[in-house]
Amino acid sequence: MTERNNILSVTKPFEIRFSEVDSMGVVWHGHYVKYFEDAREAFGAKYGLEYLMMYDKGFLEPIVDLTVKYKRPMVYGMKPEIEIVYRPTEAAKLIFDYEIRDAITKEVFVTGHTVQVFMDRYSHQLVLNNPDFYEKWKQKWEVNV
Amino acid sequence: MTERNNILSVTKPFEIRFSEVDSMGVVWHGHYVKYFEDAREAFGAKYGLEYLMMYDKGFLEPIVDLTVKYKRPMVYGMKPEIEIVYRPTEAAKLIFDYEIRDAITKEVFVTGHTVQVFMDRYSHQLVLNNPDFYEKWKQKWEVNV
Amino acid sequence: MTERNNILSVTKPFEIRFSEVDSMGVVWHGHYVKYFEDAREAFGAKYGLEYLMMYDKGFLEPIVDLTVKYKRPMVYGMKPEIEIVYRPTEAAKLIFDYEIRDAITKEVFVTGHTVQVFMDRYSHQLVLNNPDFYEKWKQKWEVNV
Amino acid sequence: MTERNNILSVTKPFEIRFSEVDSMGVVWHGHYVKYFEDAREAFGAKYGLEYLMMYDKGFLEPIVDLTVKYKRPMVYGMKPEIEIVYRPTEAAKLIFDYEIRDAITKEVFVTGHTVQVFMDRYSHQLVLNNPDFYEKWKQKWEVNV
Repeated sequence: MTERNNILSVTKPFEIRFSEVDSMGVVWHGHYVKYFEDAREAFGAKYGLEYLMMYDKGFLEPIVDLTVKYKRPMVYGMKPEIEIVYRPTEAAKLIFDYEIRDAITKEVFVTGHTVQVFMDRYSHQLVLNNPDFYEKWKQKWEVNV
Repeated sequence: MTERNNILSVTKPFEIRFSEVDSMGVVWHGHYVKYFEDAREAFGAKYGLEYLMMYDKGFLEPIVDLTVKYKRPMVYGMKPEIEIVYRPTEAAKLIFDYEIRDAITKEVFVTGHTVQVFMDRYSHQLVLNNPDFYEKWKQKWEVNV
Repeated sequence: MTERNNILSVTKPFEIRFSEVDSMGVVWHGHYVKYFEDAREAFGAKYGLEYLMMYDKGFLEPIVDLTVKYKRPMVYGMKPEIEIVYRPTEAAKLIFDYEIRDAITKEVFVTGHTVQVFMDRYSHQLVLNNPDFYEKWKQKWEVNV
Repeated sequence: MTERNNILSVTKPFEIRFSEVDSMGVVWHGHYVKYFEDAREAFGAKYGLEYLMMYDKGFLEPIVDLTVKYKRPMVYGMKPEIEIVYRPTEAAKLIFDYEIRDAITKEVFVTGHTVQVFMDRYSHQLVLNNPDFYEKWKQKWEVNV
């Protein structure tokens, strides 16, 4: 990433659902994957990179890599927020980092990382080169490496 | 239902997942909907009424009615089983009753009921008459009312 | 319900998660149970009837009855809202009705109904009489039948 | 890992639930976290390392690290199996690798890795030394490094 790159990010508060808390009294570890997805949707809405738009352009963006690091448990009643940060890349990939933390104290609960590739919606073949719309999107937001 | 009707049913033991237990230490009430769906799949497999087959015939079978009655909570480590029973009907509907109980003691935890209709897979229009394949299926299993 | 009773309700817009849409392209029917729970939490927050408060008072409120009626499917990208309405009752029960609809057109997707009872947090015995705090709550909001 | 270490593993076939398939027609990526948990439960049952036993001994085992690599999507109707392999470690940790593949062709869909630590059930403090029962367990199965 060169220094001229913008940092694109969204920070969004969210609520813990009762059903997301497990019998240990903490948010079950698998639910963080949903929080990450919520953050990607918020990112897409803010920066014009919605799933439906990309679908209309003929592309799917499956996750190929997921990493979650759990620092501290979240319990019901906490007020967390999630920050998603776009990581610029030359490749035809969508790379995001995540941080879930207390909205007030900023204490970090979980960090994460995902990598998505582009797939042709019809042939389900991997797309190795940046789709046109993505190339233009990178230029618009000045996140071309 | 006339007396010549067969009773079509499947009974299937299943395991409670750790992630299905909520912070009260019992299976979260919403997860029973998945158990019902598992039972419908087992029923379809046993009696030749699989979702994929019906999809190939051009039909979807959305749930239009769901009822769940919770008698006793299930806790992690219990060994439950689910029984699904087909309820014969003249209508173009799939109607099932469910009972979830202890596999050994037969103590009942939950009972349920679902109604599904047929939808055209392409037009997404409701199908009011019994699809051909369903009519034949009813005859084969002698559950035509 | 006598005519002097207040109508207690909350209406809350919500977002459909990508992961909640099934392979038919519509919200999987089981996810509505979570939307109902979200609505109960919003209701508790507005009217001072939070799970954590009741837990501190020594009570759990398990669902004993759930009904869902599916009118029209919701698809990804729609902007739904949920309304939850408290149904006054003499019994030691929490009874709610739900309506999920398009936030703009008010077209109804799903309606629902739940009944909760009170359980002693320690003995896990059913509580047949209105707990003190609930009696006072009914008086405060003038929903005593 | 020294060469005298046993390889402890379980391979278990499983079914894809209809509700686990997303609108792209493939298993939603977050559901693999549940499959991993199922595999840990099967492992615990086979080798005497159940959550409930460890809970009775006074310990919780939260996940601190999760990695998932998605090679190929799974679609409804496939017959997958999951293999879980215990990775010996000197540390007071439970480390597992996972592979989800076609039960017949052995084509790999997903691989994964989790790390769990021990927490005192009462104080919720991290336990840095191997709990007694875990030390004995390692000796019994000859997986002490």
